[in-house]
Amino acid sequence: MAGCELDSLEETLETHLPEAELREVKRILFGKQTEKLDLPACAVDAASERNFELKGYKFEATQEQLRPPRKVRVGLVQNHIVLPTDAPVLDQINAMHSRIGEIVEVAAMCGVNIVCFQETWTMPFAFCTREKEPWTEFAESAEDGNTTHFCQELARKYNMVVVSPILERDEQHSTLWNTAVVISNSGNMLGKTRKNHIPRIGDFNESTYYMEGNTGHTVFQTQFGRIAVNICYGRHHPLNWFMYSMNGAEIIFNPSATVGALSEPMWAIEARNAAIANHCFTCAINRVGTEHFKSEFTSGDGKKAHHDFGHFYGSSYVAAPDGSRSPGLSRTRDGLLVVELDLNMNRQISDKWSFKMTGRYAEYAEELSAAVRHDFKPNIVKE
Amino acid sequence: MAGCELDSLEETLETHLPEAELREVKRILFGKQTEKLDLPACAVDAASERNFELKGYKFEATQEQLRPPRKVRVGLVQNHIVLPTDAPVLDQINAMHSRIGEIVEVAAMCGVNIVCFQETWTMPFAFCTREKEPWTEFAESAEDGNTTHFCQELARKYNMVVVSPILERDEQHSTLWNTAVVISNSGNMLGKTRKNHIPRIGDFNESTYYMEGNTGHTVFQTQFGRIAVNICYGRHHPLNWFMYSMNGAEIIFNPSATVGALSEPMWAIEARNAAIANHCFTCAINRVGTEHFKSEFTSGDGKKAHHDFGHFYGSSYVAAPDGSRSPGLSRTRDGLLVVELDLNMNRQISDKWSFKMTGRYAEYAEELSAAVRHDFKPNIVKE
Repeated sequence: MAGCELDSLEETLETHLPEAELREVKRILFGKQTEKLDLPACAVDAASERNFELKGYKFEATQEQLRPPRKVRVGLVQNHIVLPTDAPVLDQINAMHSRIGEIVEVAAMCGVNIVCFQETWTMPFAFCTREKEPWTEFAESAEDGNTTHFCQELARKYNMVVVSPILERDEQHSTLWNTAVVISNSGNMLGKTRKNHIPRIGDFNESTYYMEGNTGHTVFQTQFGRIAVNICYGRHHPLNWFMYSMNGAEIIFNPSATVGALSEPMWAIEARNAAIANHCFTCAINRVGTEHFKSEFTSGDGKKAHHDFGHFYGSSYVAAPDGSRSPGLSRTRDGLLVVELDLNMNRQISDKWSFKMTGRYAEYAEELSAAVRHDFKPNIVKE
Repeated sequence: MAGCELDSLEETLETHLPEAELREVKRILFGKQTEKLDLPACAVDAASERNFELKGYKFEATQEQLRPPRKVRVGLVQNHIVLPTDAPVLDQINAMHSRIGEIVEVAAMCGVNIVCFQETWTMPFAFCTREKEPWTEFAESAEDGNTTHFCQELARKYNMVVVSPILERDEQHSTLWNTAVVISNSGNMLGKTRKNHIPRIGDFNESTYYMEGNTGHTVFQTQFGRIAVNICYGRHHPLNWFMYSMNGAEIIFNPSATVGALSEPMWAIEARNAAIANHCFTCAINRVGTEHFKSEFTSGDGKKAHHDFGHFYGSSYVAAPDGSRSPGLSRTRDGLLVVELDLNMNRQISDKWSFKMTGRYAEYAEELSAAVRHDFKPNIVKE
């Protein structure tokens, strides 16, 4: 971890680079510049009062003759936990509902059609502790939990699709899951999708709590486009992104919880690579802040026990299939990133780059089927 | 294309950012800093005399108890063509041999064990013209061509593995291929590997000249480690990198030829994502300069015919499995990037992040087999 937390990579570059160099550096780093989106003054004021960053950008596609633009506004929410981690569980959940409620209200002012919160957004990311109590009490039914009901109200009130990643308790099977509940703008639950890949690394002892998801690569047809949710560690697995895309996803959300020392140099790479490789939009969302736990814990790195495991660095962003990306939210503050996408860009870029046609997938299906056998013989040439 | 060509992204940042900010910006952009490698004065002098950039870096792994370090030095060569594109074919080839010969001599002074040249390194990247003559005359036998013989001499002389990407003519099958010839440090040809994915985009009319490779995902066991070659457009296909890794590649070279307007914002993303996702090292190599052709040609973009298709932006770099990367070579000059890798890092990072164990590949083999069927029904949930 760095001693001081830089607020924002982009702002640091903007502060110090001369204009001509800045333009080229940004082009090389971030691709074609995303235009700023005009947001209503009431939203800007409300975000300021409520102490969160509000940024807006748009990706534009080429005008076509036969298809009208397919513009959709996504809202990415990143935030600190509100109460200390030893506050009563219900108080913590209610405080998070309240905080998210006031951010989503601003998202509505900005015309957001689909909003997505961070991973297990109702709770601290407590899996580092390896304690089961009280953390498993944060788990709720995806279908009938208070959090789903809360999100259904938001969806109905604001005519907004809500992607709500929670810790799920499946009473029927006596299991816990890391799940995203997808709620239609009608308020109906469209379905749920579970985290496909579970980390076993450092403070991310998540396989202690839940297992690999069993919902495959479900894609949700919303009024505003087809969406999928690749939760956190699944972003390290290109095949995971790929199968969501093969199932028709136009936007893939990646609600996450990850800290600087571990993953920050990978953060800007993985979701963006997925947008490029799959001709779709990806939305990477990370929480912010440092979460302190009452019981000390170790991190499997030979170091002394401690009460926090580092800084969640925010930096939520949207990547486009043309290789460009939006600026990120800050590394330190709560924030709402509103990005207008024209989903027509996906097919335009697909027609241009043709990765789906040049992918030779049938051959990979065969090669992969052979490679996963325990007696697989790698194709290694020796002298 | 930008009006002026920035020499180097890294140098621009170093020139303008204050030290503390620079350190954080570099950490976020490039990961754990790669140390500079001390290179012998004779090499530095020779590079200066011969007018090419010489840079050296090293990636260090943790010291283990049971395995000694597995250090290997790779050399990435990027260069302009030497003669005008309308010079006699044999003169052009000989001039390239001569240029590469003087660069490889410096690589030998720097202790390089494995050197890799840029895609179809003996010729201009003339596929934009769609003319067959004289360009197909640059094609040579992989086994018995002059260029392979030339590389075998280099390999023997310097005890160096040579990866030589050429336009291959297979007389036996009357076919052309985009091929990398891999020559052992003994001077023997280890084998060849053909470009798996062929672009059909803009000026990259390559499917006009050759087809998708039929050599699968061969990995070459050299004295210095197991290597594979993912040629150019294959870097856009995560499955391609993945299958080289599944076959045991520790270092994957990506000899390329690509221009700024098309791909530059993707350049720093794709090979690096592959290093992360596959727990291996990747080496991205791009040519430099602008190549002018006598006959004018159009680029399928509605614009007027022209005689060049833009600036090859160099920027060759090495990415490590821990998410870090070396600085790039310049965007404008011939260059040799010498990077010392400790291949022990691959297994260390694999043991840490465990992507191969959490990858659920058997399930993807099934899903992919289903998805490639013409009557595949995507898993889309509707309200």
